[in-house]
Amino acid sequence: MKVKGFRFSAVEAAVKKPGRLDFAMILSDVPADVAAVFTTNRVKAAPVLLSMERASRGKVRAVVVNSGNANACTGERGMSDAGETARLVAEAAGIQEDSILVASTGVIGKPLPMDRIRGAISALIIGLPAGNLGDVARAIMTTDTFAKSESAYGEAGGAGYTVAGTAKGAGMIMPNMATLLSFLVTDAAVEPVFLRQLFRRAVDSSFNIISIDGDTSTNDTAVLLANGVAGNPVIMPGTPEGEQFESCVRSVLLSLARQIVKDGEGATKFVEIRVVGAFSTADAKKAAMAVANSMLVKTAFFGQDANWGRILAAVGYSGAEVDQNRVALSFDDVPMVRDGVFVGGDAEERGTEVLRKKEFSVTIDLRLGDGDAVVYTSDISHEYVSINADYRT
Amino acid sequence: MKVKGFRFSAVEAAVKKPGRLDFAMILSDVPADVAAVFTTNRVKAAPVLLSMERASRGKVRAVVVNSGNANACTGERGMSDAGETARLVAEAAGIQEDSILVASTGVIGKPLPMDRIRGAISALIIGLPAGNLGDVARAIMTTDTFAKSESAYGEAGGAGYTVAGTAKGAGMIMPNMATLLSFLVTDAAVEPVFLRQLFRRAVDSSFNIISIDGDTSTNDTAVLLANGVAGNPVIMPGTPEGEQFESCVRSVLLSLARQIVKDGEGATKFVEIRVVGAFSTADAKKAAMAVANSMLVKTAFFGQDANWGRILAAVGYSGAEVDQNRVALSFDDVPMVRDGVFVGGDAEERGTEVLRKKEFSVTIDLRLGDGDAVVYTSDISHEYVSINADYRT
Repeated sequence: MKVKGFRFSAVEAAVKKPGRLDFAMILSDVPADVAAVFTTNRVKAAPVLLSMERASRGKVRAVVVNSGNANACTGERGMSDAGETARLVAEAAGIQEDSILVASTGVIGKPLPMDRIRGAISALIIGLPAGNLGDVARAIMTTDTFAKSESAYGEAGGAGYTVAGTAKGAGMIMPNMATLLSFLVTDAAVEPVFLRQLFRRAVDSSFNIISIDGDTSTNDTAVLLANGVAGNPVIMPGTPEGEQFESCVRSVLLSLARQIVKDGEGATKFVEIRVVGAFSTADAKKAAMAVANSMLVKTAFFGQDANWGRILAAVGYSGAEVDQNRVALSFDDVPMVRDGVFVGGDAEERGTEVLRKKEFSVTIDLRLGDGDAVVYTSDISHEYVSINADYRT
Repeated sequence: MKVKGFRFSAVEAAVKKPGRLDFAMILSDVPADVAAVFTTNRVKAAPVLLSMERASRGKVRAVVVNSGNANACTGERGMSDAGETARLVAEAAGIQEDSILVASTGVIGKPLPMDRIRGAISALIIGLPAGNLGDVARAIMTTDTFAKSESAYGEAGGAGYTVAGTAKGAGMIMPNMATLLSFLVTDAAVEPVFLRQLFRRAVDSSFNIISIDGDTSTNDTAVLLANGVAGNPVIMPGTPEGEQFESCVRSVLLSLARQIVKDGEGATKFVEIRVVGAFSTADAKKAAMAVANSMLVKTAFFGQDANWGRILAAVGYSGAEVDQNRVALSFDDVPMVRDGVFVGGDAEERGTEVLRKKEFSVTIDLRLGDGDAVVYTSDISHEYVSINADYRT
């Protein structure tokens, strides 16, 4: 995947262990406008603290990222390591140090192996002319089982542009961006305030509606760089071009979000939880999230058990307004519950058929108002426990 | 276990399947003052709705309970079944129908097998003279692997009294009383308003500080009956006798709570999470609960991995005030983190030794104030996933 005015590189720095790409870089030929969203965790990794400050200035040239080590809970040394990484890359690439964002993912609490990072920088720069976004996608994987990328194309004032992006996810995914890194680039020229607003909205309706295990990490970072090299007239909000551009960004993020859920640690199911008829949108989101995060619901999905009772119980403790005598529930198009009780007949058998599929939806109608929400989630399997019990070993 | 003026009985009604006690009763010879705490879930099982109303009147004679079926999400039929169960027991025992509380636990969404319940009632009454609290403890088990009971003794005005209780827990345990049934009885005479207040406090400092998987059920019920048969002068608040009685109730509940965590579905570890130095008590509780409920922390406990980074990440997203450069953490008495960073040395090895134990504590010092809190939790194992994937089959 190529996007005008961007170059990509990924190399092996053996951050955690040798034998894989784990150190990558995205470089814009010219200063790019930046929009960025970071973890809401009060414990923030050093690269997050550094990048938050730099992204707030509005223009950047590059993003440098490593997997294998989160550089989190590493104190002053972590800050100094993140800063040094950016400084050395800046020197080697001939760009300004503070125009570089850094990101890390991996084990918490161990210092970055700076000797190996330092040793990999010249290869990283040398790789830029030949690299592509797919290399970056591979280098940022941790327990991910496949590399994730997506792109979309638009046009403004006769000039075509691309929006392309990559993400890594796997475990620790829930709203508010759990250990999730995502980097998007576009050659479109976009009004900078609009760029930041639409990116925030697009993240809220993609990464923030997925849930794997309910944990939120110290390192989440989503970045969109727009370098304007496509030569289009600057895309403004409230115009058809603005809508098209926002739709491109949203579709890329939504595709990445779905890929992340499908690749949830040990996941065997991809489930869309839809809540409709809630008293409010906030209630709908609360209810959908409670269902998506319920361990009992997730293990029932894994067991292919049409256990709608656990789903209603999760809705019940979600904090949303619920009248248990009004609720309806279906698996795909198979009604299971009406007015709060099981519909009977062959629903159990037909519902179980739905649960046997790899992808299905659960629709909960609270019949109290107009609020609706969708959340994507996965099941919890034996594999999930194995992966996370043994992660550091 | 015998308590003056109380009789107990448990029989096999084959509610879900034959071969075990699953239908039980506690009867007081005289009307007893009652204190009760019920689930906060907005979806409440029929027996909860019925018992909430009856308990609010202040006096009851009996509690009737079944396992194997929760009688939840069963609509009007569920209400009528719960009412009929109480009515038939009342007729057989010769007591008033509305002096009977009912409780159920088990599968959600299936109607009670009323033919088998009806058929078991005479045996239930016949068993009363010979039964004891241990029989009730066995009859209320679901995925519990051992029956839980505890007792304590006190004295007021020269008259000795007993506080005895049983509980069932296993999965779905978290604060606010997940599928948890608990029945306590005492022959002490206690001022009724004081009885209700102290029971609420004792539940808050026992069942509401344990966490297994973060789900909250439709059926939780905790009841304390005080029949005054011990003949003591009525125990009043603000007296040494009041303090002693409250301490008896608390010690019984705390022991039951600990038994429940130890018997968490598939649990291999019993972990005490202590947060100290929080900005406030509320913050300390939030932080301790976030750690106790984190899937990543629980799987690390299962893997015997001294992964303090995941614990700090959970504290970070708990909503509590955190200064990541001040936090200290230890496993039992082994310091792992000081000023937010790993202490180094042989801490990794010594911390791992602690995690290999069946019982250990995690202490997190936020160094921001005087708030502290303790939460008991367990790990999440392969066995947990198996039990909950296959629960209905």
